[in-house]
Amino acid sequence: MSRVAGACGAAGIGLERLSLNQATVKHLSLADAVALCVRYDIPAIGLWRDRVAEIGLDRAAAQVRRSGRHVSSLCRGGFFTQADAEGLAAARADNRAAAREAAELGADTLVLVCGGLVPGHRDLGLARRMVADAIGDLVPEAQRLGVRLGIEALHPMFCADRSVIASLGEAVDLALSFPADAVGVVVDTYHVWWDARLATEIARAAGRIVSYQVCDWVLPLPVDVLLGRGHLGDGVIDFGPVSAAVAAAGYDGYVEVEIFNAEVWAAPPDRTAAVVRERFAAILSGGGVQADGAPSGLEGSAARPGRCGALDFARVCPG
Amino acid sequence: MSRVAGACGAAGIGLERLSLNQATVKHLSLADAVALCVRYDIPAIGLWRDRVAEIGLDRAAAQVRRSGRHVSSLCRGGFFTQADAEGLAAARADNRAAAREAAELGADTLVLVCGGLVPGHRDLGLARRMVADAIGDLVPEAQRLGVRLGIEALHPMFCADRSVIASLGEAVDLALSFPADAVGVVVDTYHVWWDARLATEIARAAGRIVSYQVCDWVLPLPVDVLLGRGHLGDGVIDFGPVSAAVAAAGYDGYVEVEIFNAEVWAAPPDRTAAVVRERFAAILSGGGVQADGAPSGLEGSAARPGRCGALDFARVCPG
Repeated sequence: MSRVAGACGAAGIGLERLSLNQATVKHLSLADAVALCVRYDIPAIGLWRDRVAEIGLDRAAAQVRRSGRHVSSLCRGGFFTQADAEGLAAARADNRAAAREAAELGADTLVLVCGGLVPGHRDLGLARRMVADAIGDLVPEAQRLGVRLGIEALHPMFCADRSVIASLGEAVDLALSFPADAVGVVVDTYHVWWDARLATEIARAAGRIVSYQVCDWVLPLPVDVLLGRGHLGDGVIDFGPVSAAVAAAGYDGYVEVEIFNAEVWAAPPDRTAAVVRERFAAILSGGGVQADGAPSGLEGSAARPGRCGALDFARVCPG
Repeated sequence: MSRVAGACGAAGIGLERLSLNQATVKHLSLADAVALCVRYDIPAIGLWRDRVAEIGLDRAAAQVRRSGRHVSSLCRGGFFTQADAEGLAAARADNRAAAREAAELGADTLVLVCGGLVPGHRDLGLARRMVADAIGDLVPEAQRLGVRLGIEALHPMFCADRSVIASLGEAVDLALSFPADAVGVVVDTYHVWWDARLATEIARAAGRIVSYQVCDWVLPLPVDVLLGRGHLGDGVIDFGPVSAAVAAAGYDGYVEVEIFNAEVWAAPPDRTAAVVRERFAAILSGGGVQADGAPSGLEGSAARPGRCGALDFARVCPG
């Protein structure tokens, strides 16, 4: 991963470390998403393969290069848990292609969403072994290309159908079984915020964190739980401690805002970019303001849960 | 918890250990749910406090006693994470009342759903400390009454709003900090099936498991994720290894089928009871049949995901 000039500690992650994941402005082409980043002085972008493929790898790489933006991640490889030989061969070829694209784009990492249960099988162990085998198979190619694979632990509600790697601890265990130059982990607040072992597992990931992605957990969950993400400050996640742990583990790369949310997608992209910048500055750069409720004075873009005043814990819990 | 006569190993959990959680037949009164258990030779029932309150504790206890059914659990205490003194006092009083009801009903355990984030606060640590404090406060009363509290780890998707105890490991850590006669854990397949540490944590819970609840994880998740549970065999959970681990940890009490599912609730209760019995017999008693797909010949009551044939893993993954 590339170091970001002027990066400061977790108490304040400067805007020079902001990256916009393209999924946040889902309806924009790659060219338009890159132009948006330029307009809003967002120095890096997380790309998606379908948008790259739309215009072709060479043109995509050239456009990003010309814009002066850095590619913080390429989404995504993975989906290793296939039921038959053809599926496995296709996944293998697709992941090799993804690694080549990541190399060509100069992406800090190729994000891996590892896949759910093997179709027709309830055996979690089988699926997890297939993931480990497939990553092992991909590592030499990644090393040859100089690409770092980022294992992303997804929220356990996606365990059946998207990723049997369902906690950061698992992702770390898996990454540690491969060379550090080839395999790391992605820390995404949305997926891991609930974990009582989070601080411990981030510490174990020291030197292995290849991407830090942020968005908030909003309530109630929408019909499609994939889309229950919100702008920073619109939900319940306490970003301070997570950011501090990630910094203490040595991560000083870009911080990607990645929001899957139908309302955000329906909003004008310029407005989304402005809110992303504002919230990042207030909540990740500013420190402190996020202890209770969203920072005041910011334009909200999604329903914000009601907040009561600060709890006087000493008063109500004298024990 | 009471031992069940004739209980056999996890390879086959006999129907004499079957309990019907009342929530599975949500629309029935306590009297009707008890009568249903009698008709279908289901020896135990898990009760809910609202249905007990409807007819009064004394009458409820008498009705269950007369029916010869055992009360495997009372649902539920908890919701300890309150924002102010009044809320905390109310939760305290309510949990004491719940413990008295559990004692009067002879329930094997009082299930605790501990509560989500404190309203207005993003601090998971605060919420978790409040849970620990509140359980500590309740323990002397539980011991006086001879009631065992069962800490239930809920699925992490409920962490924000229902239970900050979001993995079995946390529940075990918490239980182990209290006397074994007063505090144990509830293992519910729906909430914990995804966890790579599940076998380890169940083993750590040896002697502390006070309830084993089963239902399946069905796809896709419904609009209300609370209701994404299915009859055994309708989803993706591999019950064999979990049941074996629970047995190895010394649990030989009742096994409760607890299904929150709008379609199941809409079905005729007699049909639900019949399916519960059939599936329990085929999947938990029978052993083996559940390796791939639901057992054949059973009437399904919910959509079953498509299954491909058995995977020849050696063939497709020669490595």
